[in-house]
Amino acid sequence: MISWNRVTIIGVGLIGGSLGMALKAKGLARAVVGVGHRQASLDQAVARGAVEETTLSPTAGVAGSDLVVLATSPALFQPIMAEIAPALAPGAVVIDVGSTKAGIMAALEPMAPPGRTFIGCHPIAGSEQRGIEHARADLFEGAACIITPTPRTPPPALDRVAETWRGVGMRIRVLSPQGHDRLLAEVSHLVHLAAASLVYVVDSDSDTVVGPGWIDTTRVASGDPALWRDILLANAADVTGALDELRRVLDSFREALRAGDGTRIERMLTEAKARRDRLIEPKESR
Amino acid sequence: MISWNRVTIIGVGLIGGSLGMALKAKGLARAVVGVGHRQASLDQAVARGAVEETTLSPTAGVAGSDLVVLATSPALFQPIMAEIAPALAPGAVVIDVGSTKAGIMAALEPMAPPGRTFIGCHPIAGSEQRGIEHARADLFEGAACIITPTPRTPPPALDRVAETWRGVGMRIRVLSPQGHDRLLAEVSHLVHLAAASLVYVVDSDSDTVVGPGWIDTTRVASGDPALWRDILLANAADVTGALDELRRVLDSFREALRAGDGTRIERMLTEAKARRDRLIEPKESR
Repeated sequence: MISWNRVTIIGVGLIGGSLGMALKAKGLARAVVGVGHRQASLDQAVARGAVEETTLSPTAGVAGSDLVVLATSPALFQPIMAEIAPALAPGAVVIDVGSTKAGIMAALEPMAPPGRTFIGCHPIAGSEQRGIEHARADLFEGAACIITPTPRTPPPALDRVAETWRGVGMRIRVLSPQGHDRLLAEVSHLVHLAAASLVYVVDSDSDTVVGPGWIDTTRVASGDPALWRDILLANAADVTGALDELRRVLDSFREALRAGDGTRIERMLTEAKARRDRLIEPKESR
Repeated sequence: MISWNRVTIIGVGLIGGSLGMALKAKGLARAVVGVGHRQASLDQAVARGAVEETTLSPTAGVAGSDLVVLATSPALFQPIMAEIAPALAPGAVVIDVGSTKAGIMAALEPMAPPGRTFIGCHPIAGSEQRGIEHARADLFEGAACIITPTPRTPPPALDRVAETWRGVGMRIRVLSPQGHDRLLAEVSHLVHLAAASLVYVVDSDSDTVVGPGWIDTTRVASGDPALWRDILLANAADVTGALDELRRVLDSFREALRAGDGTRIERMLTEAKARRDRLIEPKESR
């Protein structure tokens, strides 16, 4: 079941590389082209089987492709889109994999020339790791992908894009760009701030003992600081709101602790455990 | 290298069962006895190779043992110690594996009859999982164990206990009971409250999308609520202090977000990443 004749992935790191591998493993693309700014990474992408053709030129890379995937740092999406827009084939669909959506949709959707479409996507996969060396064909299996169309998005293009993410194993959820950012502020951006803050609280005394709980809880704090700065700034209002909610819950725990109210503490912990157990259950979706 | 002639483990769950397996794998005990309150769990402990003998009676279980390990819920340590104290063999050493230390040391150390010793221990291993079915001989490998002696602790007993934890693969750190609790408030108890609070912030909407970052960050919130209620109450003052520190850091992030101060956000994230990367490096210790 070939969905795309030619797919160009711009930025062949953890996400871009894994997508190339997955598209090929599932037979969803006839050819996959990798675009990067260092030939060494592109050679590694070929060696790992993520792409077959490579080029350092985004314009040359997108020529003749019916799907273009922006998988670089989000800070580069806008300049890259400006560069490739004139070279996009008629009917081409451009998608991204960025972690915020309202700003990206507002900037990039109008940049698609007539007959070409930009659709925002956020596959919620990957880790604090980066680079083609961690890429794997099953990275997306069982994870969720949020797609954020607007009233201008042609339904057939949306369907093809959803079908592609579903084809590499993802559960699809369609949200407005703003709905995406509000949700991600809670389940991801706030979590990053909290993890970084928990690290801060610990004495940097090199002899400090940390266990498996601490290591898991703070894992995301080892993510790329510049990438996360951009994500947090792009979604500052929603993240601030989520921070305020977090503070309310922490204050409630603090009050219960000071009152020695074991019943309340246990009730809150029980409710948190139940909610988490519910949220991590594999779920079906559209 | 046999350290102990006969070891009695009271409570053969994840920690107790893993310790039995590890002592036997490393040849550190001639015999390992398991004490529990359900014969079915004890039978499973035998089947998994964690212990050879079992009994439902703590008093019978400790008779003739030179090492006794309290590995039940910490709420039971005091009544169990009261029950077994008269039956402890001359020279016997009793240790625990509880997650707080000041209260436990104050209560249990004076309960050891003359010629017998209680030494507080906290092996920082395990996970939100519980039960003998998750036990494994290598649970302690590479992890840290904090031992909290007092001026009354006989140095030879302390050395033997340290040697035992080291023998199952742990890095040893010796702290005062109060020093342990202050440290654990930061690296564990606060982390638990933060993880539970992050779960609370998320809409319990069953359709909510959570990714690998959220799952890791909140993992400890699936731990046993009653156990964690006890830990948090036992260390309420230190945990409250740690909560206040966390709030200061979160406020600092909030301020930077509202000011759109990307430089400050990136600096804080970079520092958190560097500290975490330092803290999770495997370290040598006493």
